[in-house]
Formats: sequence, structure tokens, C-alpha cells
Amino acid sequence: MAEAQDRKEYLVGVDLGGTKILAGVFRSPQNCVGRTKMSTKSQRGVKAIIDRVARCVQDAVDECDLSLKQVRAVGVGAPGAVDPESGRVILAPNLGWENVPLQRELEDHLELPVVIENDCNAATMGIYATELEAKPRSMVGIYLGTGVGGGLILDKKLYSGFNRTAGEIGHMVLEVEGPKCNCGNRGCLEALASRTAIFRRVQTAVKEGQKTVLTSMLGDDLADMRSGDLRKAIRQGDRFVERVIEEAAEYTGIAVANLINLLNPEVIVLGGGVIAALEDEMMSIIVETARDYAFAGSAKGVEIVASKLGDDAGIVGGAVLARDRTR
Amino acid sequence: MAEAQDRKEYLVGVDLGGTKILAGVFRSPQNCVGRTKMSTKSQRGVKAIIDRVARCVQDAVDECDLSLKQVRAVGVGAPGAVDPESGRVILAPNLGWENVPLQRELEDHLELPVVIENDCNAATMGIYATELEAKPRSMVGIYLGTGVGGGLILDKKLYSGFNRTAGEIGHMVLEVEGPKCNCGNRGCLEALASRTAIFRRVQTAVKEGQKTVLTSMLGDDLADMRSGDLRKAIRQGDRFVERVIEEAAEYTGIAVANLINLLNPEVIVLGGGVIAALEDEMMSIIVETARDYAFAGSAKGVEIVASKLGDDAGIVGGAVLARDRTR
Repeated sequence: MAEAQDRKEYLVGVDLGGTKILAGVFRSPQNCVGRTKMSTKSQRGVKAIIDRVARCVQDAVDECDLSLKQVRAVGVGAPGAVDPESGRVILAPNLGWENVPLQRELEDHLELPVVIENDCNAATMGIYATELEAKPRSMVGIYLGTGVGGGLILDKKLYSGFNRTAGEIGHMVLEVEGPKCNCGNRGCLEALASRTAIFRRVQTAVKEGQKTVLTSMLGDDLADMRSGDLRKAIRQGDRFVERVIEEAAEYTGIAVANLINLLNPEVIVLGGGVIAALEDEMMSIIVETARDYAFAGSAKGVEIVASKLGDDAGIVGGAVLARDRTR
Repeated sequence: MAEAQDRKEYLVGVDLGGTKILAGVFRSPQNCVGRTKMSTKSQRGVKAIIDRVARCVQDAVDECDLSLKQVRAVGVGAPGAVDPESGRVILAPNLGWENVPLQRELEDHLELPVVIENDCNAATMGIYATELEAKPRSMVGIYLGTGVGGGLILDKKLYSGFNRTAGEIGHMVLEVEGPKCNCGNRGCLEALASRTAIFRRVQTAVKEGQKTVLTSMLGDDLADMRSGDLRKAIRQGDRFVERVIEEAAEYTGIAVANLINLLNPEVIVLGGGVIAALEDEMMSIIVETARDYAFAGSAKGVEIVASKLGDDAGIVGGAVLARDRTR
């Protein structure tokens, strides 16, 4: 009979991002017992990043006074196009990766079963599994952070499409002549409502002489501005910041309406760092705009809600992957 | 034993539109043996329209020297939100209908099994069943006609969403400050690339003094302009009409890119009267724009093609419905 400490009772979920790695240890996807954060150092190259992911997992497990022997499996969400079947990251511009056998490398490092998935897909699975009690048939997740990502649950299953890149909600064009996006197009949702887009709008206006309490909070160069600073500014009555956030929320609401018209999902969940910091300021505008723009009859009964998982959605999703896709 | 003429070997497909009713008689969805067209006269009200649909079916069958006894089932595509399970048209603004039990009424009239579906969904099923030989896992149909509609095949099945209104591609907003759409928003694909939008742009420009061969073809008021007239004008070297059509094709291409980013389908099929008339002028621009705008990696291997069914897509889809959803 196995010793108590050898029972494989734990799951590890990992959120591998362009700037940070987050690993969480779970008794169940609902029950996180500890987490560890590490910078990605993506400039150091493929091998170094994979070493860091493995180390982040080991540190998180150790921090919980556990050993890897007590872990059943590890689920990893990675940015970009991910093929869960071959275990490869096909393309991840944020990491500078192309065709990296992440699953096999991590399994070699950790001697544990590993499953991988696109990061937004993982977050969507995490939210679907832990936050939505009456499992809807269909759900769309939209994540506003440094960029804007999304994930689709259709017919109660993750939908990832022909090239496994479905859910790229951030690059839905809403304004053909709008601001330039990193992807090369103009007027993508990401160029209108991501943290990057919001910060750019604030910084450009300040350079052009706009007054805001943000400069007294952070200095004239607005160094190290965070989404939470915008919330503080709005709560101090800063009408300029309020208007910038309203605009981002309106564009997000139009994107939500497009999704309601196109996919008519039962539930739409908003998440990511921007929503976590500015839920009170943004959600009612997003919901109102979406209902206003959606085609008659389409939005009826469709729920539009904010995730409570915040930055944890990715690791929770990783734990769900580890639970559901390994045995 | 049944007499030969009593064998129920035929299917009838009906396309019920706001202005016309088209009924086709089929040996199989690939083999149409005859069709009849009738105006809808939607202003005459629910009962009169249903009478006309039944009469159109009877006329089409009679025209083929057949009797209703030789028909196995009738499949009807109707505009708006349709619930195939209850057999009701929930909402069809083009017909002025709300909650009409179309299936039951037609079954009473014809004494035959009837199935109903949204018209664009029916067209999508028709194209999927008869035009795509290697059945792809996922397909999006986009129809440019008086309006713009769409239909989704996901996981080899029709996807219609929570309120059965999925696929409203025509009301995807592409230009928040764009031209006004019938739905009340601005810059929907329908307001940029439908026949109505194209004609409006031509007529407005002509009123403002734009020269075009269309006025010598149709008179200064451009009465009874059809999509085919635009094709003729372009082939006569009319640069103005060419530019209007290019613009509509570019917007359609951007919508296709949004769909590739969002749903990453294996195949996208363009159809409807505008594409039937202007395929040579529009398709290459649509494909090029879509590939240009789609997110890196997403469009790889995705086919973007024009349907050859033209106006028949709806009745072919009706025949597929009649074959697959009744026994």
C-alpha cells in the first residue's frame, strides 16, 4: 500500500505568460492551497524558459510542504497557438517560440504527466468548471489584460477550430480606420480596450496637456502605471480617466454584441486584469452597450458577467486540464 | 403494395423570403426536378402568406407532373428566429411575424410532414450537404443579398445558439461610426456590403453628380437596378462602379477575417445574389483582404470559396432538411 505522502492527491496548474509564470497547487480546481510567481525572462530562450516553468512548479509544491510525488498531473496554459494532442506550442510570439515540444520537455523535467493548452482556453475551462454552477451549453470568455484574448465553450466542450486558434476575440476589427494594433491591422478590440491601449490613450493625452490626478499619483511620466491606479483616479473624481475607461468599456460592449449576434452563447464572462481592477467602473457599461447593440431577440436571457477569478483563472484552468485530461 | 405513383420518392424545399417564395421539387438534394416562384405579399398577413407557401408547394409539384402523395416531406427555410423543435417562427420582421406555428399550419394544409429552419441555416445545410465533398468539421456561410445573413456548421452540425439566432453575421459591427443599418446600429456588415448598401452608395453618388454607364443603361433614376447591372457596368470599364464593389468586397473580407480569428472554421462559403452576380469581381478581393487581416497562423489552410448554388441554396437546404429531419 502506498504511503500517505505518496498519494497523488494534488493538481498543479501553470499560467505561462510573456512576462510571468504563475503556478498553483490544488486539492481540487476549487481549492488552491498555494501559488508561486516567477518572471519568465523570455529573452533567455526556449530551454531557459522551460527550466523556469519546471522550477516554478517545484517551488510552488515545496512551498506547500508537499513533494512532486504527491502531484497527479500538471496542466499548463501557454500563450499562442497550442496543439494539446502533440503537446507542442506551435507559435507563441510573446515567448519567441515556434514548434516547441513543451509537454514532453516538462514531463522529462518533472517526471509527471503534463497537459498543455492555449492560455485563454485554459482560463475559459477554469471559469466554466468552477464559476458557472448550472453548466450552460455555450460560453464565451473575454479577457482584457496586456492584450485581449478569448475562449469558447460550445456544446459544453472547448472549441478551438481548424488551426486551434479560435477565440482570437482581441483581433476582431471594430473600427476599420481605428488605432493601429500590434497585429498590423487597425481598430482591433485589443487596440481599443486592452490595458496597453488604455494606457497609451492616457499617456498621449497627458503629453498633449491633459490634466489628471494620475500625474500627482505617479509623476509626470506616469511610470509604473497599473489598472488599479485608474480605478483610484476615477474614485477621486477624475473625469478624464473615467471617460477613457468608459470608451474602452463601450468598445468591449460592441464586441460582446458582435459575439451575441454571431454565436448567441448562453453566458459571456469578462475577465483579465483590467476587469479585475475596474469591474465596478466597466461592467454596467459593457452590459448596457452589448444589449443596446445586439440584434433584436438575440440577447434575450444571455448572461453577461465578470469572473471573480482574476489572475487565478489561468492556474485554475490548468488544474482543470490536469484533472480532466490525464488519468 | 403501393402503386408506383404513390411511392414517396420526392422532397420539397421551400425558401420563404420577405418578397418571394421559391419551392423546389427534388429526387435528392443534388437533383432538382422543378421549381416554382411566387411573390410573398407579406402585407396580406400570416394566414394569406401560409396559404401562398402551400400553394407554391402544390404548384411546384404539379408542374413536375407529380402529386403530393409522391412527396416524402417538405423543408422550409424562413427568415428570422425559427425554433425547429416547436415548429414556430419566433420573430420575422421581414414578414411581420411573431410566434407563428408555421410547421403545424403547413402540415394541416399539405397533409405532409413539414420541418422548418432559419433560411440562412437552411442554405448553409444545403451547401454543406451538396457542395462540400470532403465534409469539413466546421464551415461558415455568408450570404450577401438584400441583407447579409450567415450560418454556422460546427463539429459537423448546424450550430444555432441559445436563442437560435446564431450566425447573424450581417450585424457584426465593423465601423462604429459607419453608415446607419436597418437594425439601428451603424457600420454593420449589412450596411456596408449588402445589395441595399451597394445600391444606396451608387444612387447617392449619382445624385451628387457622379457619372456612370448605369444611367445610360437604366435611366437617371436607376430604376430596377439589379446586381447584374453592376457587373455589366464594370465589364464596360466603369471605374466608379468597380470602386464601389471593391469597397463592399473589402468590408466582406474584413468580416471573413474576424470570423477566421473568432471561429477558425475549415471552410468559409460566400453566397447570395450579390456573390452570384459579382463572383469574378469580388471573390479575389474578399480572399486577399481576409488573408491580409486574419491573425498570423489562423488563416492557414482555411478555404474561402463561392457557392455555385446561387438563389437555389435555400431550396436545396430545404430538401436536405426534409431528408434528414423526417423519416
